[in-house]
Amino acid sequence: MPLPFRHLTSALDLKREDTEAILTVAREMDAVLAKGGSELLKGKILASLFYEPSTRTRLSFETAMMRLGGQVITADGLQFSSLYKGETLEDTMEMVSRYADIIAMRHPELGSADKAAKAASIPLINAGDGPGQHPTQALLDLYTIQKERGKLDGIHIAMVGDLKFGRTVHSLCYLLGLYKDVRFTFISPPELMMPEKVTKYLDEKKCSHVVSGNLDDGLSCDVMYVTRVQQERFDNPADYERLKLQYVLTADHLAGKDVTVMHPLPRVGEIATGVDALPNAAYFRQAGNGVPIRMALLAMMLNKA
Amino acid sequence: MPLPFRHLTSALDLKREDTEAILTVAREMDAVLAKGGSELLKGKILASLFYEPSTRTRLSFETAMMRLGGQVITADGLQFSSLYKGETLEDTMEMVSRYADIIAMRHPELGSADKAAKAASIPLINAGDGPGQHPTQALLDLYTIQKERGKLDGIHIAMVGDLKFGRTVHSLCYLLGLYKDVRFTFISPPELMMPEKVTKYLDEKKCSHVVSGNLDDGLSCDVMYVTRVQQERFDNPADYERLKLQYVLTADHLAGKDVTVMHPLPRVGEIATGVDALPNAAYFRQAGNGVPIRMALLAMMLNKA
Amino acid sequence: MPLPFRHLTSALDLKREDTEAILTVAREMDAVLAKGGSELLKGKILASLFYEPSTRTRLSFETAMMRLGGQVITADGLQFSSLYKGETLEDTMEMVSRYADIIAMRHPELGSADKAAKAASIPLINAGDGPGQHPTQALLDLYTIQKERGKLDGIHIAMVGDLKFGRTVHSLCYLLGLYKDVRFTFISPPELMMPEKVTKYLDEKKCSHVVSGNLDDGLSCDVMYVTRVQQERFDNPADYERLKLQYVLTADHLAGKDVTVMHPLPRVGEIATGVDALPNAAYFRQAGNGVPIRMALLAMMLNKA
Repeated sequence: MPLPFRHLTSALDLKREDTEAILTVAREMDAVLAKGGSELLKGKILASLFYEPSTRTRLSFETAMMRLGGQVITADGLQFSSLYKGETLEDTMEMVSRYADIIAMRHPELGSADKAAKAASIPLINAGDGPGQHPTQALLDLYTIQKERGKLDGIHIAMVGDLKFGRTVHSLCYLLGLYKDVRFTFISPPELMMPEKVTKYLDEKKCSHVVSGNLDDGLSCDVMYVTRVQQERFDNPADYERLKLQYVLTADHLAGKDVTVMHPLPRVGEIATGVDALPNAAYFRQAGNGVPIRMALLAMMLNKA
Repeated sequence: MPLPFRHLTSALDLKREDTEAILTVAREMDAVLAKGGSELLKGKILASLFYEPSTRTRLSFETAMMRLGGQVITADGLQFSSLYKGETLEDTMEMVSRYADIIAMRHPELGSADKAAKAASIPLINAGDGPGQHPTQALLDLYTIQKERGKLDGIHIAMVGDLKFGRTVHSLCYLLGLYKDVRFTFISPPELMMPEKVTKYLDEKKCSHVVSGNLDDGLSCDVMYVTRVQQERFDNPADYERLKLQYVLTADHLAGKDVTVMHPLPRVGEIATGVDALPNAAYFRQAGNGVPIRMALLAMMLNKA
Repeated sequence: MPLPFRHLTSALDLKREDTEAILTVAREMDAVLAKGGSELLKGKILASLFYEPSTRTRLSFETAMMRLGGQVITADGLQFSSLYKGETLEDTMEMVSRYADIIAMRHPELGSADKAAKAASIPLINAGDGPGQHPTQALLDLYTIQKERGKLDGIHIAMVGDLKFGRTVHSLCYLLGLYKDVRFTFISPPELMMPEKVTKYLDEKKCSHVVSGNLDDGLSCDVMYVTRVQQERFDNPADYERLKLQYVLTADHLAGKDVTVMHPLPRVGEIATGVDALPNAAYFRQAGNGVPIRMALLAMMLNKA
């Protein structure tokens, strides 16, 4: 099942048939994992290039490659910063394309993934380009919703926290916009509301969305997707202090509720650890879903799925 | 031969039947190494998580995993320091448990290994938690004594240098305390004597131990285990200068002696390089013994030995 | 085809029969790569030890090892700097020799490769020792000339830029000096001319060499090997500014020319990006040739070729 693109740099590149194909292969990859892995990508090399460190994403990509029998060459941000003074991203991609079979790249600059993809002669997966895109996170979020709730069409999702700067919620909106009858409840402080470019997209896709300032409004949804609110986003520290408590999800909130709780991690307090033991808590399973999703993408983009 | 524990965080967790089982498997692993490795752990992934760098220990664990056909995902202290601001150790373990099959973790904080093991849903081996435990070092020391001297019961060992802060000598005392008729000679400056918690343990175990300030008292033992004396342990620099020479082992000391010289490495002068060529010098072989010991533990803790 | 030396620390160690043997095996390795790799070094471990970071060279060595089915343990400069305070290079080599089967080492100090090789009980390949040698770069340059031009005897090569401090051009001179009727045109600012030790060597080898200050003189050669001119080499910044433009190779220079353009990379402006699309531009293919050359060396030095 080859994908209709050579590189994956943005969630916006994906059509519904693409996400469905990827999720189908991810399910197969979960079966592969249950059997202890495969040799599908034996002899293939992933170049794991992290111009800024992200151990979670990096280890997830590397695990995915290894579970399929492939190998990994790695460079992280610290090595790059001292080394590539002066070399263009394009020249680095030309070089790496002669070593590896596929690239996963994280870079702090917006647009760097597209720039790199143009120069790469092997497939490239964007593993986050600064405030830009992080399509594999959006895909693993989508896969988690499907696994946890059994559906994507007709889902009702609350997004909580920093909806203005949060890259993951924007990308997930773009992917959920491909499905039918999806409803959104956006719960955030007024300083951190969902940007208009996203809500306009959802209007075009005929997705309903409402705004709220109250955490409780998310508890009756199918899914509550919580993100971190960062102190530095507020001009007035007192605003942050007031909001901090208001946006901390606890086990008490969830008593008797069926809502699935997701979080892109790392969390720093916005979900109390008391939630972890509840069946609602899907965020660690969500992190685990990064492996089959990335296995699916590696296999499909190397035309081996 | 499965071990009676899920995680290995402390040498104190080990009973004599455990150390004997591990040493038996380590001998088998030496045979595996002689044949160029095996595929016993093919498809398995070790997460090598070093919150503080220790290239020696890290490379030894990674070599052990690879010699058994397994694969390795790695993160070292520098990456962590910049990344995991704010994420709890427990959350990181939850995540990594969904990627890998077994964890080796080094962390600068005392008690971090137990904390991490509680959160991990896959086996965890403590590769050193600050001033706390480093059980695989103690096991490779034990294995070295057995290989070099042909016995553990009845061994007479001198421990030399910093016995107060030296994590490795404490752990080795705990393991040797499991054996019969073991005798200790503790050779150190008065500022750096073996702590009472260790000598009390040895008393309970009916191990004899004597104290000396003289390096020569170790030369008639079966084993002399030398450790580094660090200048910063002394209030008065003149004390350090006086002691420095007194505790440097040279080839002259060893003329006509049968004693086996060990050192956990790195050394910084306390064993003269002139000793390296003598048959007494076991410290590089000791470093090499880390590989079969860690192969044994990886295999046993994954129930594959 | 075993090589007549245990370690490879300098291009000067190589005789013509050695370079021919290595280039022959490299051609076989290109065929191996075309078939997707092999299992020739299965079960073997490369220790990739970079005391100073060089992602390009490190990833090339690691790729080479993996394409032959081998595995890699890695330590880079940043980890070393914080760790090995006080440990001698010799002790580190003793340790690593007990883990891995072969070492690739980059180190900032001149002469460190020879020092390390003496202590290592497994083969060591110098991946650059400061201002000293970098023999695998010289071999991949040689291989590139042979592949691009179909010959080495009788080749006419222009070397451009910093010929005084440029390690790569010196090593390449030493290797080309092994061949017949080789002619050199050295094009550099007067401040950065080829040192006498190299020109004397070429005289002994009966290689003709002429000096020029004009880039155009290189355009009628078989090969133009361009290197970076660094501003910090000039006492007078105005000299650098004047020269900068004079030594930038553009597509206009190459119109109608057959010359093969090489560069050890990274480049920082001395070859305009407009050159990249021309058939003359061999520098990215040159980088790629590092993989078969290093595969050949790894296999030969492990007696597996």
